[in-house]
Amino acid sequence: MSSSQVGDRPSTAAEREGRVLDRIDEFRKRRPRLLESVVTLAHGAGGKSSAALVDSVFVESFRNPELEQLGDAAVLPLPSGERLAFSTDSYVVQPLRFPGGSIGNLAVHGTVNDLAVSGARPQWLSAAFVIEEGFEISALREIVADMRDSGQAAGIEIVTGDTKVVGKGAADGMYICTAGVGVIPAGRALSPDRVQPGDHVVVSGTIGEHGMAVMLARGELAIEADIASDTAPVNSLVEALLEAAPSTRWMRDATRGGVGTVCNELAQVSGLAVILDEQSLPVQPQVLGACDMLGIDPLYVANEGKFIAIVPSAESGAAIDALRGQPGGAQAAVIGEVMAEPEGIVALRTAFGGSRIVDMLVGDPLPRIC
Amino acid sequence: MSSSQVGDRPSTAAEREGRVLDRIDEFRKRRPRLLESVVTLAHGAGGKSSAALVDSVFVESFRNPELEQLGDAAVLPLPSGERLAFSTDSYVVQPLRFPGGSIGNLAVHGTVNDLAVSGARPQWLSAAFVIEEGFEISALREIVADMRDSGQAAGIEIVTGDTKVVGKGAADGMYICTAGVGVIPAGRALSPDRVQPGDHVVVSGTIGEHGMAVMLARGELAIEADIASDTAPVNSLVEALLEAAPSTRWMRDATRGGVGTVCNELAQVSGLAVILDEQSLPVQPQVLGACDMLGIDPLYVANEGKFIAIVPSAESGAAIDALRGQPGGAQAAVIGEVMAEPEGIVALRTAFGGSRIVDMLVGDPLPRIC
Repeated sequence: MSSSQVGDRPSTAAEREGRVLDRIDEFRKRRPRLLESVVTLAHGAGGKSSAALVDSVFVESFRNPELEQLGDAAVLPLPSGERLAFSTDSYVVQPLRFPGGSIGNLAVHGTVNDLAVSGARPQWLSAAFVIEEGFEISALREIVADMRDSGQAAGIEIVTGDTKVVGKGAADGMYICTAGVGVIPAGRALSPDRVQPGDHVVVSGTIGEHGMAVMLARGELAIEADIASDTAPVNSLVEALLEAAPSTRWMRDATRGGVGTVCNELAQVSGLAVILDEQSLPVQPQVLGACDMLGIDPLYVANEGKFIAIVPSAESGAAIDALRGQPGGAQAAVIGEVMAEPEGIVALRTAFGGSRIVDMLVGDPLPRIC
Repeated sequence: MSSSQVGDRPSTAAEREGRVLDRIDEFRKRRPRLLESVVTLAHGAGGKSSAALVDSVFVESFRNPELEQLGDAAVLPLPSGERLAFSTDSYVVQPLRFPGGSIGNLAVHGTVNDLAVSGARPQWLSAAFVIEEGFEISALREIVADMRDSGQAAGIEIVTGDTKVVGKGAADGMYICTAGVGVIPAGRALSPDRVQPGDHVVVSGTIGEHGMAVMLARGELAIEADIASDTAPVNSLVEALLEAAPSTRWMRDATRGGVGTVCNELAQVSGLAVILDEQSLPVQPQVLGACDMLGIDPLYVANEGKFIAIVPSAESGAAIDALRGQPGGAQAAVIGEVMAEPEGIVALRTAFGGSRIVDMLVGDPLPRIC
């Protein structure tokens, strides 16, 4: 695991703070560097290596203000003054079908959610398929039906697409790439720059189901557990939250790399600290059990229907009430707070009173989960 | 080849018409049906099988007015009254680099061109990468640099993206999926419904280079020829044409399936006939030679920097002059005309005075060319 164990036993606040401060230089706000000469699975895992690849290869070459925001979606200003959000993701999950959903559901939810947490109302999706020769048409129809159902549930339309076919052995059955466009209502301005010390960290529900469901569905682990992916659209939850907590600062869906990675990205970009409270983290017992057996921290496990929102403390009660009143939001919780220091750091107050640094994900403990 | 040889020797107009009419029932406006139970390479070739798959699986399931237009891009109406074009394509070309370009150039040009021929001014692109584990970072940097250069030449910005990594043996090195958004200027209304008998068929330049360049680059054929892909953005050509020929009815870029497939799609959708003139088709001699040796009709070979425009005859002279005045448009030509009958049919008047039906592409003579 990539988190540094600072202390799991009770200790004084001063001791804990000392231990955390000792590690600041190590983890201080700086983007990782690309050291490898070939692409590795870790470069696709959403953690430290991914960030290094994106910074060093893509942002470096394409340079423009929209891309450099590195948000879930780019904001496109139109001549009329309207603002659109625009986002894309490829889906390469294995297996294609898992408890709770399929690559088709993911391909819609993932892009819808990227738009929603950018403050946009998702409206239109494109869908591009790369299909392996010999793939069953009946299986394709089922995946397409999942996309249709997910699209209807999210209130979006799939308006344009593309199909490519590659030879046997390539594409693991199929890959799907979706892009989405949404309209950002006037007055919405979500940005990590708006986050302030004292703000609360809100999660929209239990964490870690998606990644664990996919891992177990591969059947390579000698673990059986009743875990279903949480794959779902979050746009209704986001609308409810923004209505109840209009000063919400920033949101992000906690997909690859999980809640730990999202909080690290916020800490790095804002230069603030994010202090999470282990006892407040909503995790299903069976997810916690499977994570324990595999030595995986649920903070790094991907979700596909959960997001993190940074909300001023005065509005966090209303935010939680609003989320809990929506389907999929019953387990919403305040899981931590933003502090001024230690700058650029994410730490977890453990159930035993200790604290540990939650670093960015290193390596790829859960490959190909979306 | 999929074209039916009706006659290559001189014959009277009545004889020719009789032969064409005999085949109308066979080819009359009807969309092909999906007969296979598994996906084949032909389903990705852009011809008859692709149309069957798209109709039977995707359109059938996703049903909405934008998608059913089956245009190169969907038109998105915004609350402000502005209209956007939105398009996507995946790129799976093999090899990744070929004379005249790379998968990076294609991934930008292909989506830019889909937007441009829809009447939009391309502005923003997303780029999603699926990369095989072990791919050289240096090769990735070169492809990304090609994307940057193509983006600059086309005047667009790559504003959002995604990276996934898959295991060794998958993804043939890399696949790229781009989506694009452009703004459609007020008053532009390009549609196959506007096409009328008597309109001229304009091509923006020589045909067949891209497909043949990629085929030869694979080194599997005992043919050497100096053929480079035509991969290029066409948005400046489109703007010049629309300024010179403001009543232009409809446009499409002639990618997978080539000019023959584009004309068939027009004939089927409009219920009109498209009569092409073999002697007017601009084809480089080395492309014609390679096609002859391989028994491939250049009408079905993919282009990545050429488009077809249907222009009222009164404006076609101005259209050609405007295209020829632009970089990449020197070989623009009128290559045929639209007629009322035979309904739904594309025919080619051969150099010898005969004529033959140009059917939709069947099978995939040139797999993985984009």
